Amino acid sequence: MHVTSEQRHDDGVVERELILGDIPGTLWTPASAEPVPLILMAHNNALPKCEPRLVARARHTAAAGYAVASIDAFGCGDRSRTEAQQLARAEFRRGMQAGPTDDVLESYTGPLVAGAVPDWRTTLDALLTLPEIGGPVGYSGWLALGIGLAAVEPRIAAAGFFAGGYVPRTQREAARQVTIPLLVLLQWDDAGNPRQRALDLFDAFGSTEKTLHANLGGHVGTPWFELEDGERFFDRHLRGSGPSLH
Amino acid sequence: MHVTSEQRHDDGVVERELILGDIPGTLWTPASAEPVPLILMAHNNALPKCEPRLVARARHTAAAGYAVASIDAFGCGDRSRTEAQQLARAEFRRGMQAGPTDDVLESYTGPLVAGAVPDWRTTLDALLTLPEIGGPVGYSGWLALGIGLAAVEPRIAAAGFFAGGYVPRTQREAARQVTIPLLVLLQWDDAGNPRQRALDLFDAFGSTEKTLHANLGGHVGTPWFELEDGERFFDRHLRGSGPSLH
Repeated sequence: MHVTSEQRHDDGVVERELILGDIPGTLWTPASAEPVPLILMAHNNALPKCEPRLVARARHTAAAGYAVASIDAFGCGDRSRTEAQQLARAEFRRGMQAGPTDDVLESYTGPLVAGAVPDWRTTLDALLTLPEIGGPVGYSGWLALGIGLAAVEPRIAAAGFFAGGYVPRTQREAARQVTIPLLVLLQWDDAGNPRQRALDLFDAFGSTEKTLHANLGGHVGTPWFELEDGERFFDRHLRGSGPSLH
Repeated sequence: MHVTSEQRHDDGVVERELILGDIPGTLWTPASAEPVPLILMAHNNALPKCEPRLVARARHTAAAGYAVASIDAFGCGDRSRTEAQQLARAEFRRGMQAGPTDDVLESYTGPLVAGAVPDWRTTLDALLTLPEIGGPVGYSGWLALGIGLAAVEPRIAAAGFFAGGYVPRTQREAARQVTIPLLVLLQWDDAGNPRQRALDLFDAFGSTEKTLHANLGGHVGTPWFELEDGERFFDRHLRGSGPSLH
């Protein structure tokens, strides 16, 4: 793991660009003398880790006291793609505009998740060697990848999943194997993610502790306060700091 | 309005028993030099205002900086009941044990809400004359009453509704007239409140800003953190103190 650049922001958050083998990553860490929990933050469907909405979430979460990491995994973001991947991606984009179908999801998102899971686990191995990261580990973001990771990666202790009902069949079937505490976001009017599918998926998760937050609006309309709600969810599960009210 | 008793708790919250005409009420106020917003807190289906879960919520919310009021409205709690009300109440309890039906709701909860709404408005008139209460006003709790109140009472600026799908037809039909910001709680496995009815009701509210929080478990299993989430919801809407993150 090599650090290729580093900058410190006004709020004390340090942002480092990393290379882990062939995986480009970004790590945001808070101004903290103690090791902090780590949150893996992934954007939907191969969007790059430099995408402004992801960066804003990552920096806010780091300022709240977490190490936050994102990578351009297999087939994602700045990673070079094979010709087959480029074709599948173009097909996926056309499909998403026309209205997503299970076929498009299986042929594009399925292999993308399958390829991305090992890259995220490699990243986790590397990051947990850093002295400033003290575990436990949370996951935030891309639903299909999160299911794929949480189903096989016992080090992930809690996950926040972003609005989504359309996930490939493999991940839909793996939902029952996910048993960690979950905060699941749903955008009530998300044209690309049918509401009933999202509710069925929430129902299917094997977790005994899971919360659904639904808000009006389309896919990118998640209100800002859900970011803070998500941080408090991680506070409860990664810090064990929930007040014992009742 | 007469104060019949007053006690100060360790956290600074002052709890006063009130009589407003023939309406017994309780008012919890925080240790604050400034006037604070008011939250009307109502328990489901005629449960008394002294019920421990309601009192715990009220005191926590008062400690968070709100005046909180509850009453035993028409037909509720300690209020004397006519023979017809007593019969309807016994019928309702038998019906709830057997599994609620629309007929039972119409014959018991319908008149109860219709009679309780004027009592709550009378209470609101009286409380807003107190110097320690500065408005705006929120509502928290019993879903059917909350719809009835919010549909006719323009002074209520935001409402948190507790888990419920079974509400009388009059209130179900009034849901579209409710246009204030809402936080709606849903208990995913609430045997007495069918999930699909609760989702349909959430969908029906006329509000452009509404959030649903669903958690696993039965009717009384709402997790403690939803109380704090509810207080932050009121902070955003009754204090206008939401950080402008995005």
